[in-house]
Amino acid sequence: MNDTTHAMPVTTGRTGVWIFGARGSLATTVVAGAAAVAAGLAPAEGCAAELPDFRAAGLPPVDALVFGGHDVVGTALVEKAGRLVDGGVLPASLLPHVREALTTADREIRDGLPDGGAEPQARAAERLTADIAAFRERHGLARVVAVNLASTEPLPAADPAHASLDALEQALETRADVLPASSLYAYAAFRAGCAYVNFTPSAGACLPALEELARVTGLPHAGRDGKTGETLVKSALAPMFRQRALKVRSWSGSNLLGGGDGATLADPAAARSKTDSKQRSLEETLGHPVEGVVHIDNVPDMGEWKTAWNHISFEGFLGVRMTLQFTWQGCDSALAAPLVLDLARFAALAHARGEAGALPSLGFYFKSPVGSTEHNLTRQYEALRAWAVRPDAAPAVPR
Amino acid sequence: MNDTTHAMPVTTGRTGVWIFGARGSLATTVVAGAAAVAAGLAPAEGCAAELPDFRAAGLPPVDALVFGGHDVVGTALVEKAGRLVDGGVLPASLLPHVREALTTADREIRDGLPDGGAEPQARAAERLTADIAAFRERHGLARVVAVNLASTEPLPAADPAHASLDALEQALETRADVLPASSLYAYAAFRAGCAYVNFTPSAGACLPALEELARVTGLPHAGRDGKTGETLVKSALAPMFRQRALKVRSWSGSNLLGGGDGATLADPAAARSKTDSKQRSLEETLGHPVEGVVHIDNVPDMGEWKTAWNHISFEGFLGVRMTLQFTWQGCDSALAAPLVLDLARFAALAHARGEAGALPSLGFYFKSPVGSTEHNLTRQYEALRAWAVRPDAAPAVPR
Amino acid sequence: MNDTTHAMPVTTGRTGVWIFGARGSLATTVVAGAAAVAAGLAPAEGCAAELPDFRAAGLPPVDALVFGGHDVVGTALVEKAGRLVDGGVLPASLLPHVREALTTADREIRDGLPDGGAEPQARAAERLTADIAAFRERHGLARVVAVNLASTEPLPAADPAHASLDALEQALETRADVLPASSLYAYAAFRAGCAYVNFTPSAGACLPALEELARVTGLPHAGRDGKTGETLVKSALAPMFRQRALKVRSWSGSNLLGGGDGATLADPAAARSKTDSKQRSLEETLGHPVEGVVHIDNVPDMGEWKTAWNHISFEGFLGVRMTLQFTWQGCDSALAAPLVLDLARFAALAHARGEAGALPSLGFYFKSPVGSTEHNLTRQYEALRAWAVRPDAAPAVPR
Amino acid sequence: MNDTTHAMPVTTGRTGVWIFGARGSLATTVVAGAAAVAAGLAPAEGCAAELPDFRAAGLPPVDALVFGGHDVVGTALVEKAGRLVDGGVLPASLLPHVREALTTADREIRDGLPDGGAEPQARAAERLTADIAAFRERHGLARVVAVNLASTEPLPAADPAHASLDALEQALETRADVLPASSLYAYAAFRAGCAYVNFTPSAGACLPALEELARVTGLPHAGRDGKTGETLVKSALAPMFRQRALKVRSWSGSNLLGGGDGATLADPAAARSKTDSKQRSLEETLGHPVEGVVHIDNVPDMGEWKTAWNHISFEGFLGVRMTLQFTWQGCDSALAAPLVLDLARFAALAHARGEAGALPSLGFYFKSPVGSTEHNLTRQYEALRAWAVRPDAAPAVPR
Repeated sequence: MNDTTHAMPVTTGRTGVWIFGARGSLATTVVAGAAAVAAGLAPAEGCAAELPDFRAAGLPPVDALVFGGHDVVGTALVEKAGRLVDGGVLPASLLPHVREALTTADREIRDGLPDGGAEPQARAAERLTADIAAFRERHGLARVVAVNLASTEPLPAADPAHASLDALEQALETRADVLPASSLYAYAAFRAGCAYVNFTPSAGACLPALEELARVTGLPHAGRDGKTGETLVKSALAPMFRQRALKVRSWSGSNLLGGGDGATLADPAAARSKTDSKQRSLEETLGHPVEGVVHIDNVPDMGEWKTAWNHISFEGFLGVRMTLQFTWQGCDSALAAPLVLDLARFAALAHARGEAGALPSLGFYFKSPVGSTEHNLTRQYEALRAWAVRPDAAPAVPR
Repeated sequence: MNDTTHAMPVTTGRTGVWIFGARGSLATTVVAGAAAVAAGLAPAEGCAAELPDFRAAGLPPVDALVFGGHDVVGTALVEKAGRLVDGGVLPASLLPHVREALTTADREIRDGLPDGGAEPQARAAERLTADIAAFRERHGLARVVAVNLASTEPLPAADPAHASLDALEQALETRADVLPASSLYAYAAFRAGCAYVNFTPSAGACLPALEELARVTGLPHAGRDGKTGETLVKSALAPMFRQRALKVRSWSGSNLLGGGDGATLADPAAARSKTDSKQRSLEETLGHPVEGVVHIDNVPDMGEWKTAWNHISFEGFLGVRMTLQFTWQGCDSALAAPLVLDLARFAALAHARGEAGALPSLGFYFKSPVGSTEHNLTRQYEALRAWAVRPDAAPAVPR
Repeated sequence: MNDTTHAMPVTTGRTGVWIFGARGSLATTVVAGAAAVAAGLAPAEGCAAELPDFRAAGLPPVDALVFGGHDVVGTALVEKAGRLVDGGVLPASLLPHVREALTTADREIRDGLPDGGAEPQARAAERLTADIAAFRERHGLARVVAVNLASTEPLPAADPAHASLDALEQALETRADVLPASSLYAYAAFRAGCAYVNFTPSAGACLPALEELARVTGLPHAGRDGKTGETLVKSALAPMFRQRALKVRSWSGSNLLGGGDGATLADPAAARSKTDSKQRSLEETLGHPVEGVVHIDNVPDMGEWKTAWNHISFEGFLGVRMTLQFTWQGCDSALAAPLVLDLARFAALAHARGEAGALPSLGFYFKSPVGSTEHNLTRQYEALRAWAVRPDAAPAVPR
Repeated sequence: MNDTTHAMPVTTGRTGVWIFGARGSLATTVVAGAAAVAAGLAPAEGCAAELPDFRAAGLPPVDALVFGGHDVVGTALVEKAGRLVDGGVLPASLLPHVREALTTADREIRDGLPDGGAEPQARAAERLTADIAAFRERHGLARVVAVNLASTEPLPAADPAHASLDALEQALETRADVLPASSLYAYAAFRAGCAYVNFTPSAGACLPALEELARVTGLPHAGRDGKTGETLVKSALAPMFRQRALKVRSWSGSNLLGGGDGATLADPAAARSKTDSKQRSLEETLGHPVEGVVHIDNVPDMGEWKTAWNHISFEGFLGVRMTLQFTWQGCDSALAAPLVLDLARFAALAHARGEAGALPSLGFYFKSPVGSTEHNLTRQYEALRAWAVRPDAAPAVPR
């Protein structure tokens, strides 16, 4: 880490946001939305960081964010944005005003990790790291936060090379398949001195070797799996049953979604990492195992929209059985994009403060928060607020 | 207050629970359920007071509660319980085991306030007060908590006699219509030295003159309008929108219910006090007014069951419109009865500690908590816990 | 009737569609949609008349319809269409292509009936009749169908002048308040030799005097209250319970809608004519009275969209209680517009065939079908088909 | 066939109902329910055969049905009925009154087909046939209808022995695995001269060799897969979309059920035969393929109850997207039992009339009606009625 030349307080200077999966629907919504919000063309709805509670936190403002990233596809962001207009995610009237921001970000996107490469992964990691460092230098950024928005991967098989940083680096020199893409991206991010956020259920930084790397480089990271819809509602509702001593007997869910996410999750292995994450957080909240099945189905007709139905059967006084059902109809990219902006800004704060390792205080945003088993949304919110505005957190020596 | 002869700690001695509306569905479920729980025949589901969080609070146990009350109807509790079995509220197998407890409680029920009496209310109040005091003496109770479960009344018109205790007592001497029944019951409860809980939306103790009486007699009270179903879910969900900076555009609800409650609320004036209470708590939670309509409909076919459908339209990033709907299917008496038991026990605790006036810490249980505008269920739960187990709360001189 | 100069078969010549309420959301969608369909820019989804079953009926094609009408407001149709684009009813890409059709129709709109006029209604009727006749002459139309799309009115009080044509015409000469606007429009339509369709729950032609007028002038009419959403679903579902001998115990509904319709129906008297119509058709289908409440609420936030929730409690074998709930989320104008086009075309067919009086075969389209108590949607569809394609229906002497 | 000695009209004499799966929840509900209805203790809700429309059909009355069957388990019907009382299917008050009928039926249950027998299936078939014939003789029954209510099987692999009666009978002599159990039961039923009804999605009589057997023995059969809940609602709703020319874009469903059925369907192969059947009937109704996923999940907590949620996305005028959702909460045994009684009685009618082969007129009751692709519930009802009461249907020579 040689960031010490950036002696500005956290709110000064510009913050880079380096996105893995930079040409996806979500990344496009993030870039277009940030431009719209910065220009005052749209309210920052969905951005908790803009609430009065966080005014004293010294977060970098949205208009101080600079975007770049890696991707394996070549679709121009402007073209992608056009599809989002058709899908009802971006208002048509906004497109002309954010076209320039999209084109600018487009120029900052580099080739990501192709499937099934044959060269040792150490080489690939060097290239990725250099891309990010060059981005920081090119724009004179105070710091860069790397955010994983790439397609959900199956969870990796156990591998001794994941157990320690030493073992990992030896394996990377010779093998082409040590890490899943999400983890190789995380490796490159840390090597480039970035804070790292994993918005997907993929492994990312959640391997012992990478957690070790975060600690030794003194870098913060947060994750995993953005809590945008069904699980968000669950984390608001499940505590109610526990606090009221109502026994949940079964909790089942059906998720219908289209778009790229729907197609990815039609792969049962990828879906497994997502449904596991959903059910685990529920059981951690309720404090006991609970019957029920969660499905995630690809229904291309749904486009960018997602409908989730949940059926909860519970038992009250004298064993009387009752039910609660809910139906959530949301636009995933519109729900996720403000969270990505929030996370980039909070991770930048942690980076400026010199915090290293997992950031449990950002659990508010995740289905499987690293470093925490708290899923009660209100407690997560209050933990976030307490952390963000704590008086002793201002870095004595800015990094 | 001359309760100082009751020098036992709160968990010793027996606590009287004096119910206004003692022959209703809810009161019957309370008495039958307390007997079943005390006998170990049913788990205390729905009783938050039984959670590990409250073990250190020193609450009176369920088997130390003794029931009595006032009512204007004469139906035997055992007969009423039979109807609750038919309605799916009480398990048929339980009835033989709680018959004796119902008969015992039946003998402790006195005539309530008839509609349209002509005598000065001071006379009626004396009779009610004497009934309660005799109950306490007869059973050698450590204390009595009075709980209002009577039918919902229209809110009273403004009356100068409600403004101060002096004005009230003068008016009671001469008029037969100074106070609505719920408030005259509350007056008698305080005069008898009881803690008072208002589980209905009726006025009860929420008049300046009665609040003054509570303070001068040094007695605690809590209310108003038990949060059992739709509003419970709202108080879990509404904070989510605020914490996530999602703008709620409209929130509408439809409640279908039968039973006595359904018939009472078919009277628009009575329903008004209930729907007002529902919508107010929502707006206090969200922090801004919100469009929408709440209906409460009497559908006799529903019997003891209630179905509530809520439709929430909200706006996220870039103004994208989304919706959440929920359907709650609950049995009102089964939901409310454990709350009544909890409240009786927590109010007994406050009484033992010598707390006087409104108990905002019991807001967890109410749609319109007296002394509080906090509606976030998790915060209410934590406030309750903090209050219940606070180390300095043990009464230096037991009352 | 002196239409005998129009000796063309029904599919030749152009058909006028004269709309009462010609500047409303629905009328605008009808005009814009007809233009889009005629130009091949949009499929005719929602138009049953385009199904193969009706190919042999000899209906006038959509591109042979010419639009005009009466209204009391002056908003240009193009401006109104812009609002429908914002509301998600019209695709933005369509607007440039239908602009001309909207402007053309705009020129054919004349002043409607102002509220509270003071002149005898016979004078107003003459003006309206002349407007319609001039429209037919100006465009050399084979025939004109008048369609009522104006705001829902309260049902009129009983009036002896409604009992016969003679009584009506005497009263019209002297009074300014004999008929509600919808009925005066219907009177003018018949006097101008038009077929008449009432798409609203207002009285329209459903008064004995007007039914007599239809018969003596030999003109067909159909109505009442377009079956577009909740009631459509009911008419598909309710027969299921009857056919399966399942006893419906209660059927309740909650309708949330914005737009002009929502505001109109916030007037309880207007809403009454709508909710009565909804509940009556249900009871006629089930064959017995049924508990339950129907609400129609104005929630401006909903814009052009409507959400209806229905809760149905029913009883099966051995008295077991079960429920069915549905939630319908539809865009009213998009649902109603194709029905209006269908009705105009089917009414033109009846006019060409010389049919006079109520057309029960069009009951498929209505909540309160005139001349029929059949509400089973499949039976209504088959009755419509049988009527439309019956071999003996071709007029021997074209009118 | 030597039934010609039974020269009574259809309504005289008693009809045997021989149930494969005679100790399951459904069979128990059938036997208990028939006894309750026959004794006038419960209304025949859910029995379409009791509607006035079928009075002239000459069906055997419910009190003329005699029950027996095969099963592989030994649980007494009375014990099973006790569990159904606990599960809310049978009213507790009914049990004493139907105990005798259950005990009587119990004595008529013989050992069914064990899993993985090793003897040639011809031997097993002889035993089953003899059991049924002896039942008929023992009770002097006019005829016997065999009904398959056994657990759902996976669909059988293609086998040349299924192609013709000759091939089948040769294979049965030597092999122990020619037919799945449901088809061997059907074989025995036909050999015993019974009408046959397949209430499950298993193969049953739906193999060419068995259809040939039905024809050569002159026996009627009906099936397949009783339409009790989700699919029943679909068959009422789907025609609406087609009749209104609304394009269904996707139709997805989630079914949560417990009980024996839930456990059986947790086997994906068995579930496949059920979900295939559900989706096929939908596409046949709509007339085109449709996106969407159907899940059937075992949630033991649901007990005898089933909850189905369906989400339908459709497109109306100008391509506007709308949705319909429904939630069905039903008790499967209570829904299915009256259908089984109806089917036994209608199949007895067909038997008395000498009808042979598939009975498409009974399609009203099935998800996959043999001999028909009509799924519109109203059309199915009318076809049933027309068939049941047709004047020429009385058998010239009673069988």
